[in-house]
Amino acid sequence: MRFAKYHGTGNDFVMIEDLDDRLELTPEVIASLCDRRFGVGADGLIRVVRGHGGLDSMAEADFFMDYYNADGEAAEMCGNGIRCLAKLVYDGGLTDAVELDVATRAGLKHVALETANGAVERVTVDMGPPSFERKAIGMSGEPTETFIGQPLKVGGRTFTATAVSMGNPHCVLFLEDSDDLARMDVPRLGGVVENLSDLFTNRVNVEFVKPVDGVLETRVWERGSGETFACGTGACAALVASSLAGVVARRGKVRFPGGLLDLVWGEDDRVMMTGPAVCVYKGEVDDDWLAAASRGRQQ
Amino acid sequence: MRFAKYHGTGNDFVMIEDLDDRLELTPEVIASLCDRRFGVGADGLIRVVRGHGGLDSMAEADFFMDYYNADGEAAEMCGNGIRCLAKLVYDGGLTDAVELDVATRAGLKHVALETANGAVERVTVDMGPPSFERKAIGMSGEPTETFIGQPLKVGGRTFTATAVSMGNPHCVLFLEDSDDLARMDVPRLGGVVENLSDLFTNRVNVEFVKPVDGVLETRVWERGSGETFACGTGACAALVASSLAGVVARRGKVRFPGGLLDLVWGEDDRVMMTGPAVCVYKGEVDDDWLAAASRGRQQ
Repeated sequence: MRFAKYHGTGNDFVMIEDLDDRLELTPEVIASLCDRRFGVGADGLIRVVRGHGGLDSMAEADFFMDYYNADGEAAEMCGNGIRCLAKLVYDGGLTDAVELDVATRAGLKHVALETANGAVERVTVDMGPPSFERKAIGMSGEPTETFIGQPLKVGGRTFTATAVSMGNPHCVLFLEDSDDLARMDVPRLGGVVENLSDLFTNRVNVEFVKPVDGVLETRVWERGSGETFACGTGACAALVASSLAGVVARRGKVRFPGGLLDLVWGEDDRVMMTGPAVCVYKGEVDDDWLAAASRGRQQ
Repeated sequence: MRFAKYHGTGNDFVMIEDLDDRLELTPEVIASLCDRRFGVGADGLIRVVRGHGGLDSMAEADFFMDYYNADGEAAEMCGNGIRCLAKLVYDGGLTDAVELDVATRAGLKHVALETANGAVERVTVDMGPPSFERKAIGMSGEPTETFIGQPLKVGGRTFTATAVSMGNPHCVLFLEDSDDLARMDVPRLGGVVENLSDLFTNRVNVEFVKPVDGVLETRVWERGSGETFACGTGACAALVASSLAGVVARRGKVRFPGGLLDLVWGEDDRVMMTGPAVCVYKGEVDDDWLAAASRGRQQ
């Protein structure tokens, strides 16, 4: 079994080309491949299929991103992963188009490729419009009200906070000039906010944002995963919330520990995210190892 | 740059064949390769060189294990890594000998291969003799005295403990029948023992051992690394200490979270460790990625 290893701003993926949609990957094999000590190691696995991959409602799709979390469970969409898919199909000569429609379990996604010397350098993903109503975010309270620039008490201090959905729920916390983002106790505070169950009934992703010279320096706490190197929908939430707060215009840069993303909140209300995708290596799984993993046995 | 990824009981390595000793790997490139998100990801990197690799005192060596920690620093020896090296050279047809002398920075090591269907399944490594004198372990007190089966107060309770050197210092703590090894707070207690600087003047590796049906169930805290999946010299220390305590004979099994190792403390005082080595995949690093890593720039 051949694969390639990619990352987008530190979010890393095992990528498997299966253009004709023939491969059956069990959750056990996917979890074994994603294991960082006994397998290849990744945050998730992406099977790349030509066309719509059986999702008939997206018949115009160029490719299907069949995405799985590291535990082997199918997942909907990943903003960092879709950039990696775009680079893989273009650099690998599977398409010469620089605009692609990619089918995902969260719907059809449009991506635009920036290339140089025949290789993709950056990819723009249409991440869709934000929603601010409490019901869209899974918040308690009046369903049609918003939670924008409000005080939020967390662990003994009060942040200015904005709640926004980018398909998944986010709570953006703004730091003060005197705060040191690098020394912020994100694991503790993120866990507290994620589980403010009186307010966020479906839990929440949390962004800690500090504008520095026009760049939104950001750390992110992902619901169910903990702190990560970067988060595509989190970048959108950070830009949108900062724009509403007047900190930046509708266009800005978000810098995560894993790298820099460019965001534009368009006049059509859609958020465009642009960032890098990197191929680290190509590989081929050992036959004996794969046979053992297929039998559900750790080698 | 071609490489292979191996692991031995969950201790994983980027393996690079460089038979003619031509490759210059900078610490930056090694650290980038070992990075688990932005690179290949591993506990260490092993460059495999034919012959003694310039270590003239080991002229009879079949191969040289040029071993580096994940941070890019050259290191001496690794009991799990040397098993992986043995499998790589035999399975890859670089030798047809089933006994090898391997040069390491900690001296010449003898390994014996168990093969089936042309592939190595398990490897026995001569780990050398244990030492029990305090001066060999870096302990305070009378240099020629030992510390065997003595009470040691750690975090509010007293363990029976034995200190032993296998080239590096170990402190083996024995659990009681009522103790649950899986629930033991190894990160806390291991850190406390490692830093009992009045006793262990050069810090110490710590094994928590519970004999269950003749198997030494063990978790290990490695000096400077924290808890790991398995440790070769730690397995030797666990067997030797348990043998002195009369818990097992001079032959026994040590089960770490990462897998099972067989140990024999021979009549010649040398400890033989036998365990598996697994090839997970072969790979080839992307040229652009490697160029960026060589310039010291994270991609």
